[in-house]
Amino acid sequence: MNKDELYKDLEQYFLEKGISEGSFKEFSEQRKISRTSLNYYFKNKDYIYTKILSKILKDFEKKFFAIINNEKLSYYERIDVILDMYFNITKKNIKLYPYIQHLNEIEKKVKNKKDVNTDEVIEIIKKICDNFIDITNKEIQNGSININYPKNYLFLIISTCLFPFTTPYIIESVINMSMEEFYEKHYEYMKYILLKEIEILK
Amino acid sequence: MNKDELYKDLEQYFLEKGISEGSFKEFSEQRKISRTSLNYYFKNKDYIYTKILSKILKDFEKKFFAIINNEKLSYYERIDVILDMYFNITKKNIKLYPYIQHLNEIEKKVKNKKDVNTDEVIEIIKKICDNFIDITNKEIQNGSININYPKNYLFLIISTCLFPFTTPYIIESVINMSMEEFYEKHYEYMKYILLKEIEILK
Repeated sequence: MNKDELYKDLEQYFLEKGISEGSFKEFSEQRKISRTSLNYYFKNKDYIYTKILSKILKDFEKKFFAIINNEKLSYYERIDVILDMYFNITKKNIKLYPYIQHLNEIEKKVKNKKDVNTDEVIEIIKKICDNFIDITNKEIQNGSININYPKNYLFLIISTCLFPFTTPYIIESVINMSMEEFYEKHYEYMKYILLKEIEILK
Repeated sequence: MNKDELYKDLEQYFLEKGISEGSFKEFSEQRKISRTSLNYYFKNKDYIYTKILSKILKDFEKKFFAIINNEKLSYYERIDVILDMYFNITKKNIKLYPYIQHLNEIEKKVKNKKDVNTDEVIEIIKKICDNFIDITNKEIQNGSININYPKNYLFLIISTCLFPFTTPYIIESVINMSMEEFYEKHYEYMKYILLKEIEILK
């Protein structure tokens, strides 16, 4: 197995197992690979996590920009498609979410910036957010829609889209639902709450 | 300083400094206290964190039950008062939130359950959630209000109330706002979003 193949295998392992649950130790034992070369190539979990997240975000960013700037669709339709796209990506990477909260600490922990590039992740999120606000303000100014407080609306989207998946233990232990059961209902409800905020004027 | 006084001092230190930012090392150096006795009395940060969170939650729980069962207030008024109370508590303990995500891992890390009692925290949250759902269903059944999907509504409340405070780095770095500036606007907006979902029938 070359380095790229090994990385793909490692990525798949962490996506299935979860970042908190998986370990280099277990992976190297299962695959009968030396732990030393694994650490040499891929440093640590934080490195892998940031790398996986970066890739997913870049893919999301590309699709997001294609949709949000698509003038053949109304603003409402664009948000509708983006939410569907987001939830489909989430569904595939659900085990990745609980770790998002760590970005903050990964950033602090990392002395050698070359190892873990959390800036890149933050930059992509920032670009997506900035563009969302721009397009929304433009649509409000040209009178086609109204949204009360676009920045807060953006944060409502982020909260409802991210939070439940970052704290599966609240869902599983507090409201007695599996993530899968919760997921479908939450998705429908969030779309209902979020799309309702878009007032179509023309 | 006796043990109780020392605990109060330590609690105050972590509330001001934040759980991630503060350390037993810094506290013991500042107060010129031996690190050994500090560890002996108060084990570790996870122990302190769960203890502080428990106390705040117990206080919240007491007030929550007094309000949610107060039949002199309409359902709408009760939720209004509870949201105000919640945000006031949050404002005072804002540095505590980013650590909430760790509960899951604290739970896994802890071998000696006597050290850190995360079950208690989860139990209080569960009691509050269960009661919220009960009261809401009762009000819907007696025809005084309607709310679409009470369980999802509860999760909307939890998401919007908790998420932004658990990820201050997103607010600070992505949307270029300080937590304080964000806080006031978010609070107003969330009340507007959440109260709007309560359809008053009689």
